[in-house]
Amino acid sequence: MPRRPPPGSRSADFARRARRVRLLLFDVDGVLTDGRIYLLSMPDGGALEMKVFHAHDGAAIKLARAMGLRTGLITGRDSAATTRRAREMRMEFVTQKQANKLPAYEEILRQARLGDDEVAYMGDDLPDLPVLARVGLAIASGNAALEVKQAAHFVTRRCGGEGAVREAVEAILRAQGLWRKAIGRAEA
Amino acid sequence: MPRRPPPGSRSADFARRARRVRLLLFDVDGVLTDGRIYLLSMPDGGALEMKVFHAHDGAAIKLARAMGLRTGLITGRDSAATTRRAREMRMEFVTQKQANKLPAYEEILRQARLGDDEVAYMGDDLPDLPVLARVGLAIASGNAALEVKQAAHFVTRRCGGEGAVREAVEAILRAQGLWRKAIGRAEA
Amino acid sequence: MPRRPPPGSRSADFARRARRVRLLLFDVDGVLTDGRIYLLSMPDGGALEMKVFHAHDGAAIKLARAMGLRTGLITGRDSAATTRRAREMRMEFVTQKQANKLPAYEEILRQARLGDDEVAYMGDDLPDLPVLARVGLAIASGNAALEVKQAAHFVTRRCGGEGAVREAVEAILRAQGLWRKAIGRAEA
Amino acid sequence: MPRRPPPGSRSADFARRARRVRLLLFDVDGVLTDGRIYLLSMPDGGALEMKVFHAHDGAAIKLARAMGLRTGLITGRDSAATTRRAREMRMEFVTQKQANKLPAYEEILRQARLGDDEVAYMGDDLPDLPVLARVGLAIASGNAALEVKQAAHFVTRRCGGEGAVREAVEAILRAQGLWRKAIGRAEA
Repeated sequence: MPRRPPPGSRSADFARRARRVRLLLFDVDGVLTDGRIYLLSMPDGGALEMKVFHAHDGAAIKLARAMGLRTGLITGRDSAATTRRAREMRMEFVTQKQANKLPAYEEILRQARLGDDEVAYMGDDLPDLPVLARVGLAIASGNAALEVKQAAHFVTRRCGGEGAVREAVEAILRAQGLWRKAIGRAEA
Repeated sequence: MPRRPPPGSRSADFARRARRVRLLLFDVDGVLTDGRIYLLSMPDGGALEMKVFHAHDGAAIKLARAMGLRTGLITGRDSAATTRRAREMRMEFVTQKQANKLPAYEEILRQARLGDDEVAYMGDDLPDLPVLARVGLAIASGNAALEVKQAAHFVTRRCGGEGAVREAVEAILRAQGLWRKAIGRAEA
Repeated sequence: MPRRPPPGSRSADFARRARRVRLLLFDVDGVLTDGRIYLLSMPDGGALEMKVFHAHDGAAIKLARAMGLRTGLITGRDSAATTRRAREMRMEFVTQKQANKLPAYEEILRQARLGDDEVAYMGDDLPDLPVLARVGLAIASGNAALEVKQAAHFVTRRCGGEGAVREAVEAILRAQGLWRKAIGRAEA
Repeated sequence: MPRRPPPGSRSADFARRARRVRLLLFDVDGVLTDGRIYLLSMPDGGALEMKVFHAHDGAAIKLARAMGLRTGLITGRDSAATTRRAREMRMEFVTQKQANKLPAYEEILRQARLGDDEVAYMGDDLPDLPVLARVGLAIASGNAALEVKQAAHFVTRRCGGEGAVREAVEAILRAQGLWRKAIGRAEA
């Protein structure tokens, strides 16, 4: 990939890599969300966290599952909002509160009985680099840090929380020849 | 319509279609909102959902009603926020929690005693396609999926939650020669 | 003013009008906020409303007051968020829940013992038109409806909730030769 | 600096100033957040405040600390959200509710036993000017008021709450030759 990959960049072997994928893994903040940390001050001096997901991303993840792909997330933070959203999107692997992502990734691989080249991982910041270096298909959202974009086989045009995940899932399903069939399966 | 309709695109027969419309139906997420799913983590491990509507959309829907048009919504999710906003906008048909939208659409048609060509429906994603294929006037918000834009007679310049509904309602009222009269009826 | 006034447009007599202003009045949704209606679904089936103001606007309104101008708001909705924000900005006239704005405007004028030409009013949508037609200085935010921009002596570059009020207040204080002095009075 | 410094502007001596920095201080609204004041109306007539931070900023502040820099904030408002976020980012100096920022700045300097030229301060509005005039490295976010940009040695491309702090911290760590080493220390 070039030094500063523009939005929409794909490596020459993107399609070959995408066709092998059986498992889609996502970071949360900056990928499934816009990276913003919303904190609501409570009267008792505490604060509640809000997260902002996107409807198009959820629709795509449900379609991926309907087409036989497995899905999951690995995040450093811990939040009830993420737990609920993962359930709504019917995700299989939900791993929160991971300061280091590589051990969580390896545990998921073991449970799923898959190899690195069968996994796509999508991230946006420095803690995602070790996993991105391992997976068959490394994806960066349009808002990702420079180092993450440089490590990716695909940089989405859209930013996290604004449909970046939809764009990535759609690109993979198209590469696998499944997108047209998937459209008919869409539920509200 | 062309393969990738740009914002503001209208089919050649837009005005003729718009003049027949008696009922305006809307999807919620991505049309009356920006498509973002806001989830607030609660101390008990649950999460509350927030939705973000736009004041200009609400003003337009109230004007449409004042000018004799009927209004409603069909959405896959279920939310107290949508219920309250629909009441504020004085909508007649409020149908939530519909995984498949066509049966809900047909039930509304039956209750309203109207035909397909008297209905405008505005959507943004794949689950809206079956209804868009039926109505006399199919509208896509500026942020809609490619397939939805291709199925539409009108693609708004504005995105959902940023005044897309206002733009659509205003275009219909203008086609019906009612916009100038409507302006004088505006309430805060 | 031209048919479709671009952001930043000022009427030829803007400075003369601005120098007479003693009272600044604002609409809330779309002027002091971005026009979005945030609704949080509660477990009991109700919904709480959130409003989003901007720190720069608040700083400007406090500066205007420090320089001797009076301030207030007139809005169609009713919200505890607006009440609190008005108090933080030390506003004198706070009038909520007004379906028609003209009577509220006239009552404020009576209390303030001021004439139309001593008032600036800033709005963004159709219900603001009757007041904009009366005041000495009519201001539209960058996101305002076309009809509102056409009725304005000044259209801000910024949109409501993103510093449009700061831009308007700064322009008036500059016209009155008070901006430089005001800077030194700024408090956090 | 020029009269209207564009995003990304750096003074000729930026690198020399950045190399001396031992302490990073930040304003909150408009720097660590997007400057928006979110207020949630409560049933009892009160309102709760929400603040919106960015994950990339937090990652950068934790990296700065890991590389031996000290960090803190000075803000005019008081909020449980800020308190929690400061703790998450492991900040050393947290000073809220300061109508005038200079006394708070001087107290931090005394406690940290550092001189003005060892401090970087980042602000966005008029109340930040007195501190910006004192520190060795004055930074303005991309959304800052004109007067603040003119007072700065560095104007970030990004706006507050959208990664402006990350951009500033990264620029300082790069000037100190520490960025490459910092990347390997990143935790989620």
